[in-house]
Amino acid sequence: MIDEIPVIKVRAHDCVDTTDELAAEEPLEIRIVYGENHQRETKNISVTMRTPGCDAELALGFLFTEGIIKSAKDAVAVEHCFIACQENRQNVIQVSLNPGVQPNLHNTDRNFYTTSSCGVCGKSSINSIRTVNQYKDVVADNMQISADTLYALPELLRRQQDIFEQTGGLHASALFSADGRLLLVREDVGRHNALDKLIGAALNKEWLPLNNNILLLSGRASFELIQKAAMAGIRMVVAIGAPSTLAVQLADEFNLTLCGFLRGQRFNIYTSPQRIILT
Amino acid sequence: MIDEIPVIKVRAHDCVDTTDELAAEEPLEIRIVYGENHQRETKNISVTMRTPGCDAELALGFLFTEGIIKSAKDAVAVEHCFIACQENRQNVIQVSLNPGVQPNLHNTDRNFYTTSSCGVCGKSSINSIRTVNQYKDVVADNMQISADTLYALPELLRRQQDIFEQTGGLHASALFSADGRLLLVREDVGRHNALDKLIGAALNKEWLPLNNNILLLSGRASFELIQKAAMAGIRMVVAIGAPSTLAVQLADEFNLTLCGFLRGQRFNIYTSPQRIILT
Repeated sequence: MIDEIPVIKVRAHDCVDTTDELAAEEPLEIRIVYGENHQRETKNISVTMRTPGCDAELALGFLFTEGIIKSAKDAVAVEHCFIACQENRQNVIQVSLNPGVQPNLHNTDRNFYTTSSCGVCGKSSINSIRTVNQYKDVVADNMQISADTLYALPELLRRQQDIFEQTGGLHASALFSADGRLLLVREDVGRHNALDKLIGAALNKEWLPLNNNILLLSGRASFELIQKAAMAGIRMVVAIGAPSTLAVQLADEFNLTLCGFLRGQRFNIYTSPQRIILT
Repeated sequence: MIDEIPVIKVRAHDCVDTTDELAAEEPLEIRIVYGENHQRETKNISVTMRTPGCDAELALGFLFTEGIIKSAKDAVAVEHCFIACQENRQNVIQVSLNPGVQPNLHNTDRNFYTTSSCGVCGKSSINSIRTVNQYKDVVADNMQISADTLYALPELLRRQQDIFEQTGGLHASALFSADGRLLLVREDVGRHNALDKLIGAALNKEWLPLNNNILLLSGRASFELIQKAAMAGIRMVVAIGAPSTLAVQLADEFNLTLCGFLRGQRFNIYTSPQRIILT
């Protein structure tokens, strides 16, 4: 996940030749194989620029958070394809679906957000996510999280986030229990990939829906990240950075608690504050 | 570009109901209309989640940096479409190409990086960009930039970056002259959108190729950002954050000077150091 490369470090008016460790970035093509035994089809779903590692989790998480598959059991095998390429043989991953599983491919063209008859707007984007979200009406959680629990999360993440420490170049997604124990961390140059890897890992562990967990995001909370969190049934998202307006609207629509700017003993609550114990 | 929304601000164990200003995020659908007069066709190219504002520049910059059009003159009109949507009428933008201009649509499916016969890898990604980059062999620049010029850039950007100051939620791309004068700034929730807006604005001003300018990125330098910079003929990119390994490879391939971690009186030079005056 890290490459060492030559660098000139400039400090004021001095410079020195040395090496630097940078986060790796490589394309990953995600393919699915589906259909009945006698007529299997292969379809290229996406190419994403990601940090190599946890590719199987990334593929599974991506297919799930995009609504293409409904559970880890939809896949019988997730494996790298070895195609004729001299440079790199680990950049195509193929997810074979169970015969009988019909993938939802309506959203796999680039027009995910335009399927609503109403046209393109934040409201229609939210509607199109509602239609594929199987945990929209999941039984209510009764999480009650104290501010002190939240204040402790960034330090718990930092202790685990080795690669970020080395390179400064990775986003992290971390899953915590409701009492603040760190359960999973995934890192990537793309923040959406870090979250897909995390959700893919949780799928493999049969943890979904994640309605009694806290998701910590190392950076900002965009619409896309809240979409993925909602797809996994997550009810509490805490970001170290800022949310966007549409992230707040989507969180509100799904009764998801969204906090931002978690720094030191401070944070902001944007939606569904009932899960935070306020004194 | 900013919405005011209600928020509960928590500080240690106190909380207060107030409002917060957040960066707006909304989908934008980019369409082109092309073909001879008697048989014009409309094609939906992309939907991106962006901060509203400078949409025409975003559309033009996106079409250019993706290699679909070759210059601003390829477009005769760029305008919002008013489609039947109650919520928002500014989220579809249509670029009408000159009759006779044949858009390069080979890359508009999701497989931009997979067109090489070699398969998917960083090397093939770089190759596919080389084939569409019209400024690859542009006449050599003779930029000579002092470290002091670079040290001054972040503060010049911050003075202009009003919205980031208010919301903490926007990425910025800024274009400077070789002597460090700020020429253009664009901001967006998506870092690729900020750069497409900047390049779209430069296209409108007929400034391309930007081979005697400095591009400053407010965050990290990913492959995608270096790709867009290279498409615009930029030869010097300075990021406040970290680059990825593939960003460094691409910059090296295009003889583009890439600096990262520009903070205070420090930065790192990853590629083509000949444009930086080192004492």
